[in-house]
Amino acid sequence: MKIAVDAMGGDYAPEQIVFGAVRAAKKYDCEIVLVGDEIKIKDVLKREPDWQQLPITIQHASEVVEMGEHPADAVRNKKDSSIVVATELVKNGECDAVLSAGSTGASVAAAQLILKRIRGIGRPTIATPIPTPKGVTLLLDSGANVDSKPEHLVQSGMMGSIYAEHVFGKQNPKVGLLNIGEEESKGNEQVKATYQLLKDLKTINFTGNAEGRDIPKGHFDVVVCDGFVGNVVLKFAEGLATTILKLIKEAVADGGVAAKVGALLLTPTLKKLGKKLDASEYGGAPLLGVNGCCVISHGSSNAKSVCSAIGAANDYVKSNVLGHIKAAIENQNKE
Amino acid sequence: MKIAVDAMGGDYAPEQIVFGAVRAAKKYDCEIVLVGDEIKIKDVLKREPDWQQLPITIQHASEVVEMGEHPADAVRNKKDSSIVVATELVKNGECDAVLSAGSTGASVAAAQLILKRIRGIGRPTIATPIPTPKGVTLLLDSGANVDSKPEHLVQSGMMGSIYAEHVFGKQNPKVGLLNIGEEESKGNEQVKATYQLLKDLKTINFTGNAEGRDIPKGHFDVVVCDGFVGNVVLKFAEGLATTILKLIKEAVADGGVAAKVGALLLTPTLKKLGKKLDASEYGGAPLLGVNGCCVISHGSSNAKSVCSAIGAANDYVKSNVLGHIKAAIENQNKE
Repeated sequence: MKIAVDAMGGDYAPEQIVFGAVRAAKKYDCEIVLVGDEIKIKDVLKREPDWQQLPITIQHASEVVEMGEHPADAVRNKKDSSIVVATELVKNGECDAVLSAGSTGASVAAAQLILKRIRGIGRPTIATPIPTPKGVTLLLDSGANVDSKPEHLVQSGMMGSIYAEHVFGKQNPKVGLLNIGEEESKGNEQVKATYQLLKDLKTINFTGNAEGRDIPKGHFDVVVCDGFVGNVVLKFAEGLATTILKLIKEAVADGGVAAKVGALLLTPTLKKLGKKLDASEYGGAPLLGVNGCCVISHGSSNAKSVCSAIGAANDYVKSNVLGHIKAAIENQNKE
Repeated sequence: MKIAVDAMGGDYAPEQIVFGAVRAAKKYDCEIVLVGDEIKIKDVLKREPDWQQLPITIQHASEVVEMGEHPADAVRNKKDSSIVVATELVKNGECDAVLSAGSTGASVAAAQLILKRIRGIGRPTIATPIPTPKGVTLLLDSGANVDSKPEHLVQSGMMGSIYAEHVFGKQNPKVGLLNIGEEESKGNEQVKATYQLLKDLKTINFTGNAEGRDIPKGHFDVVVCDGFVGNVVLKFAEGLATTILKLIKEAVADGGVAAKVGALLLTPTLKKLGKKLDASEYGGAPLLGVNGCCVISHGSSNAKSVCSAIGAANDYVKSNVLGHIKAAIENQNKE
């Protein structure tokens, strides 16, 4: 097992990416290829005394795709960028998966242009694992596509179901369609058409419409939506969590001694709970539908999230999700 | 000032609605007409010893629109339903505003069919006030329409800006367009077209794209989106808040003595913070774009939210938002 890691992508690259890779090399049974500016990567690695005993190698890449760039143009023009070189390693069979915390658009574009879509898949889709009290819900698409056709949403449901089954070990995963009400008649044209197609699809366990509140409650294993909606919801959740934590800290700081002592006493309990709900425990979101394992991490990923994401990439490869998706598409075409 | 309150709409109707109306009659300088089953309403009112000294009257209505019913059909067929009778009171000039916590679809349908849209407005829109650390952000549309045309979203921005200015007292409110990135080029076809129209609209302070995280952070006074997206986001927020509170309570219950004492000491501080962020402090969302003041409350409204919503209805009427919207439409047509 060999994972190509884009060492230059992310708000805290290369430092946190490299530290995360070192953690992962100790934790998981896999080799890691750090892709990017060799000098910068080595500068960080030097701070990890035992790194040369670890299964870590460096693949130099002289360019970086920046956040503001047009994804497809950047991928086409910057042939020696870390994301392109890392993705090529998968294409050439030198690595089994690629991971990046850089521009999501660039990761998706590189995967589409270099690895290509799986034959029969209309659009790749980003599947983000959301921690819930019941375990994890996979939300897809979380931003690879907007204005998706109903057939694309149906394929997202199919691929998400396969991922939830083979990676998260869910039996017959409950697949929901994100909508504004439970009734079949609800929603916009896109989801109404999708509902009918999902209802007719016998290969997955479609259990109807999911409302916004069903996501954090963990009522479904897989929730299907357009990338526009998924992206807005995920960023909203992120902003809400940050805001509430900040306000609580401020309230405690402004509060009296009782509040401060109370916060201190409660901290271990809340930390335990926080760990359970910590999205960085999952670290990465697989891009499903391309011919190769690609995992996308949050731009603000730290070493811990990068390590988790490498774990996710491992699971993605080992569970043979790609093979299962291809088989499902073939079966569908036979019918 | 006279407010018609649908006493039969909502998960806790008529009890919490009537109690909320009694609170509001004591708090605000307005008369309240409770619309619905007279016997049931009186049964609840009897538990309020001094209600007969309050400016509360009852308008009997024999029918109720249930949650599952097709909104427009129900409004057309149930002429003596509480929502229809309450809305007619506004139409006839007997009341200044109507409030319901029943089926949102039925409230919108009744307002559209009975009060009619303001001339020049394509679609009415629900404007939900969201508490943030910086005060309040108005999110619209939160579910009146799906598949909105760009022109409808632009009118939402215009109406939301007027409401934020005249009801929340914001000077030159910052209007954002909900999108998946800051750049003008981002988004689906609907928002890309809307962006261009908003940019050209000189009468409001359009400040660009808002991402999901900008809503809870309070970076904008008004955030414009399609009703599908708005509804998903609001229900997601609701589910997330409920889930986290439940998990914290469970963690404290399962925790040791320290956790329990800590929670006890921290409670007053958190309660104060909770009050600041409590959506029920706002209580109701105005339906903008119809010829009359209509306020929509959450189905799970309790007496406190109903009271706040009656306050919102008061503000809506007093601030002459309707007049300002009509003037803005006329000015636009002149150009």
